[in-house]
Amino acid sequence: MEQIYIGQGRALDPDKYFIVVVNQIGNGLSTSPHNTPPPAGMGNFPHVRIGDDVLAQYKFVTEKFDLKSLALVVGGSMGAQQTYEWAVRYPDMVKRAAPIAGTAKNTIHDFLFTETLAEAITSDPGFNKGFYASPADVREGMLRHAKMWAVMGWSTEFFQQERHKALGFSSMDDFIINFMNGYFSVMDPNDLLCMAWKWQRGDVSRHTGGDLRAALGRIKAKTFVMPMSSDMFFPPSDCQAEWRLIPDAEFRPIQTVDGHLALFGADPSAIGQLDKHLSELLATKV
Amino acid sequence: MEQIYIGQGRALDPDKYFIVVVNQIGNGLSTSPHNTPPPAGMGNFPHVRIGDDVLAQYKFVTEKFDLKSLALVVGGSMGAQQTYEWAVRYPDMVKRAAPIAGTAKNTIHDFLFTETLAEAITSDPGFNKGFYASPADVREGMLRHAKMWAVMGWSTEFFQQERHKALGFSSMDDFIINFMNGYFSVMDPNDLLCMAWKWQRGDVSRHTGGDLRAALGRIKAKTFVMPMSSDMFFPPSDCQAEWRLIPDAEFRPIQTVDGHLALFGADPSAIGQLDKHLSELLATKV
Repeated sequence: MEQIYIGQGRALDPDKYFIVVVNQIGNGLSTSPHNTPPPAGMGNFPHVRIGDDVLAQYKFVTEKFDLKSLALVVGGSMGAQQTYEWAVRYPDMVKRAAPIAGTAKNTIHDFLFTETLAEAITSDPGFNKGFYASPADVREGMLRHAKMWAVMGWSTEFFQQERHKALGFSSMDDFIINFMNGYFSVMDPNDLLCMAWKWQRGDVSRHTGGDLRAALGRIKAKTFVMPMSSDMFFPPSDCQAEWRLIPDAEFRPIQTVDGHLALFGADPSAIGQLDKHLSELLATKV
Repeated sequence: MEQIYIGQGRALDPDKYFIVVVNQIGNGLSTSPHNTPPPAGMGNFPHVRIGDDVLAQYKFVTEKFDLKSLALVVGGSMGAQQTYEWAVRYPDMVKRAAPIAGTAKNTIHDFLFTETLAEAITSDPGFNKGFYASPADVREGMLRHAKMWAVMGWSTEFFQQERHKALGFSSMDDFIINFMNGYFSVMDPNDLLCMAWKWQRGDVSRHTGGDLRAALGRIKAKTFVMPMSSDMFFPPSDCQAEWRLIPDAEFRPIQTVDGHLALFGADPSAIGQLDKHLSELLATKV
């Protein structure tokens, strides 16, 4: 995924910056339900929050690399949730912030949508409350989950333009099975649910007794708020409402028909726009 | 439902017009899986199409009432699918047409969404391939189905504005259980699936070998195409693409944050706009 965003001559240029890329808790590469030894793994894995990720990342960059400040914190989707958490939790440390296609406080609509995603998995009898013998036991639930991602993850315009064909898939079935299901089927059901629980409860106002205005008011970073124009999870209007509460922020929506999953990088124009905004943000004196 | 749209002083005024309101096949009031005696009922009920509805309605109005033409055919959602079917199938008979929040040819996005809705029900082990002992056996699947309707049926703005509270519900849980689930839970699972199958395959181009332009080109009715501005099932852009193919049509989107389910009539402004457009359409000489 990072290859989409990082490279020589790009805004995030490894020749120019010391770039730290972290995997979030539960994503299958970091500590996750599926790779935690019993009895703490699988259905017993604890609930974790965005704040747990950021606290671990903070320890990592301060204790391992002795960093005192970060020129930019950037991330998409749950990475945007982490970006906001960073900027609110460590306002003096974060100089610039670029939350892409995500919110500081998850909306009730997004909470509900994520609940339907999770239930597609947990309702499979093979899920067995998280103690399946093999992820293959949850195959049907995972396929339903992948379909629901297809419905909301892109946009109606995406399908109207038959973008799935432009991406090389002969039919909707081909796209669902070989792209959407292919993407998720290598992931562990409990890992997905760990992330879903965390995603649902992303909320920087936990630091301020539920006062979102006060939480976002803490941010000292120069911030570019960058929703995807056709995102059905984190629509521009929800992101714009938060942007208004951030002291030094610009609203920089990305024009795309690829919806939330423009994050996959299939729309070169969206990635080009992102790159341009990030270059500008990094060039801003703070 | 018809009380929302019909009344003295309204566009659809029973003092002024002879108004025929029909229930569609499978809706639980007309012939449906749950009220068809065995062995043809329940999971054995045949697949039916929008064309079957319209053919039955045609026989009804011509044989029962001896009507030669219809001043207006109007309907929302699957009623819009039927409206398009009427106008394409019987172009000389339909003088005016008002498809509201629906399409002439269902989109692949909408097909996929409806599939996820249907699978919420069929994946419940209690569904038993349509031969449950009681709808209560499918309670969990029906609740998942209701939640998915809540996610897509309204709009993100609806939830951002907390419209569910304005409608009298104290919380999202209250809204899901007592409104969404309350609405669907009195319906029979097989009936819902009968309608879903039909909805997915609504397509007037079945009359013209798959050529949508040719099918819509047949329409002689003065037509007002009326999507809901925030509809996630049948978004304005999808309706607009069809509007361009209809010889004598106007594009009249309804501004609302209630999404597809503005059809429920909870937004008085949306109903007011509809009424105004329908009055104008009915006043148009044809």
